[in-house]
Amino acid sequence: MQKLNETINKIERIDYSLAEKTQKRLDNLTKPRGSLGRLEELAKQMVEITKDESPSLKNKVIFTMAGDHGIVEEGVSAYPREVTPQMVYNFLRGGAGINVLASHIGARVVVIDIGVACDLEPHSELVIRKINYGTKNMLKGPAMTKGEAIRSIEAGIEIFEEELGKGINIVGTGDMGIGNTTPSSAIAAAITGEPAEDLTGRGTGVDDKTFTHKIEVIKKAIEINNPDPKDAIDVLSKVGGFEIGGLVGVILGAASRRIPVVIDGFISGAAALIAYRLEPKVKDYMIAAHCSVEKGHKIILKFMGLKPLLDFDLRLGEGTGAALGMSIAEAGVKILTQMATFKGASVSERIDK
Amino acid sequence: MQKLNETINKIERIDYSLAEKTQKRLDNLTKPRGSLGRLEELAKQMVEITKDESPSLKNKVIFTMAGDHGIVEEGVSAYPREVTPQMVYNFLRGGAGINVLASHIGARVVVIDIGVACDLEPHSELVIRKINYGTKNMLKGPAMTKGEAIRSIEAGIEIFEEELGKGINIVGTGDMGIGNTTPSSAIAAAITGEPAEDLTGRGTGVDDKTFTHKIEVIKKAIEINNPDPKDAIDVLSKVGGFEIGGLVGVILGAASRRIPVVIDGFISGAAALIAYRLEPKVKDYMIAAHCSVEKGHKIILKFMGLKPLLDFDLRLGEGTGAALGMSIAEAGVKILTQMATFKGASVSERIDK
Repeated sequence: MQKLNETINKIERIDYSLAEKTQKRLDNLTKPRGSLGRLEELAKQMVEITKDESPSLKNKVIFTMAGDHGIVEEGVSAYPREVTPQMVYNFLRGGAGINVLASHIGARVVVIDIGVACDLEPHSELVIRKINYGTKNMLKGPAMTKGEAIRSIEAGIEIFEEELGKGINIVGTGDMGIGNTTPSSAIAAAITGEPAEDLTGRGTGVDDKTFTHKIEVIKKAIEINNPDPKDAIDVLSKVGGFEIGGLVGVILGAASRRIPVVIDGFISGAAALIAYRLEPKVKDYMIAAHCSVEKGHKIILKFMGLKPLLDFDLRLGEGTGAALGMSIAEAGVKILTQMATFKGASVSERIDK
Repeated sequence: MQKLNETINKIERIDYSLAEKTQKRLDNLTKPRGSLGRLEELAKQMVEITKDESPSLKNKVIFTMAGDHGIVEEGVSAYPREVTPQMVYNFLRGGAGINVLASHIGARVVVIDIGVACDLEPHSELVIRKINYGTKNMLKGPAMTKGEAIRSIEAGIEIFEEELGKGINIVGTGDMGIGNTTPSSAIAAAITGEPAEDLTGRGTGVDDKTFTHKIEVIKKAIEINNPDPKDAIDVLSKVGGFEIGGLVGVILGAASRRIPVVIDGFISGAAALIAYRLEPKVKDYMIAAHCSVEKGHKIILKFMGLKPLLDFDLRLGEGTGAALGMSIAEAGVKILTQMATFKGASVSERIDK
């Protein structure tokens, strides 16, 4: 718990005072004032976060955390559990969606086994920090112990800090874990207080019958475990997952070092929600990459007051949406740091100026 | 008119039959079916357009056309006319928004003087194909002659074809021309039949008084010139602009060679509307990059049935939104061409399969 507390205590408020100054600089660039809309907003946020007038987002790192879920015993997913390790190997060979999109935008992917239900072959690119062999079935009690919940978050912080030495300017969150929309919906229900029906989607694409069953499972999991909505660790341990805990750690770790974090979709959103409950200041370090097909995602984003960049009907996870969002954030920063000023380019200003 | 007619006649229907086949290939990739939403739609569209099963969008070219407008005499813009040539020089020095975003996504920018109101200094990177020194004031008669309208489109086709030799896989449209939201609104009003009030925005940011005046100017321009909504050349000549005509040519030229075109914002949208009226089949070659702050843009997109990718409150033009859209289209294609299959990666398929 010490590492977690230290990290939370290090998270400062972002420097709002830099927004106005940065907007003035943006207004001196050769374009009508405010005409690059969201890109300008992103540029300002990056300056507020980093306290660097001319930040660079060159080093882009996506943390894709993999873990398994005891709840798959209840038949809540369209895919079998063995897909989790199979996809980890796919990440390591570069064949997954996240590899393609990370390479497209020039990001590095760090793949982490934080709770896959089997032992994975060692690989130079695989970070193994297994908390346990998957969570327990949350219909039979808590998904994990409180100690495991804390350790999963602290593992996320440590992994982030280890990678920091290689250079990180912006972080993306990613997940892999068959069955993990179920704990994500449960976390969202526990923390936001909204009904499970409004927070549950079809995950990888379950049929009507499984969908109805999935909602029941989530309701029961909450009923049986009765997580305390004010206690994020309690929520994570009772109805969460190891990859979700790991991402909480990555988010807190990044914020503690004034590094922006691009939040991927629904599962990353559940992790963001836990981080937010632990320390609300962390929200200003976040950029919501997109609005997922998983309908609970909209509720999570609204709860934190985050406005997603993209609306592309994505529901893959892995950090795929985050990759696209990171490139857009970088575009915003480059507008601030690379465009010419009116004076420098000898361009006339507004007639009324 | 021969070049224009030949180009239009070469535009084929895109090959819809490839969509299903491509979706099947997408469904074999290691991700839940349809889980990359809009990216998968883009991948299919690119295959339908190019008839290439594994297209590459490596060579990305943005055509940024500059022209002046006689209507600025009426005080419809917040910036003086000399900004048009000043910004052309800024493009050539690499200091503008479009330079930064094109470089970010790995695109080349072709800068064209198709109707700037003064002679520009020659520059190795500047294509000079001036139709005239700006259009005429459309409150005093047509903005240009019919011959000029046709020549502006044909110049666009020719410029596109000249650049084709250097390699083009996807095109982006861009504009520069102080005052050009006014003709764009007039074009949209003439073709869609919607009222000028609903099609007029604040352009580079005019005040309330100028805004009201701008709407009146657009209404009067339509009244005086009475363009025939069914005759796109008539609309372009009476209330258009040279850079808009040039972009019509680029769009038609690209479609005639089965090359996808990413449409930027409002001014590019007006050009797209004219191209669409000349040959409706061209619409399927288009990707709408974003929905502009200029409120008429939404009406233009709806009229053609195009769904924009981004909603970033952009209103700069130059091709800045197109640049972001091109990168997203490329991401979609890479998903199709670079991801591993379930079989290839030894990943289990759905339980119900």
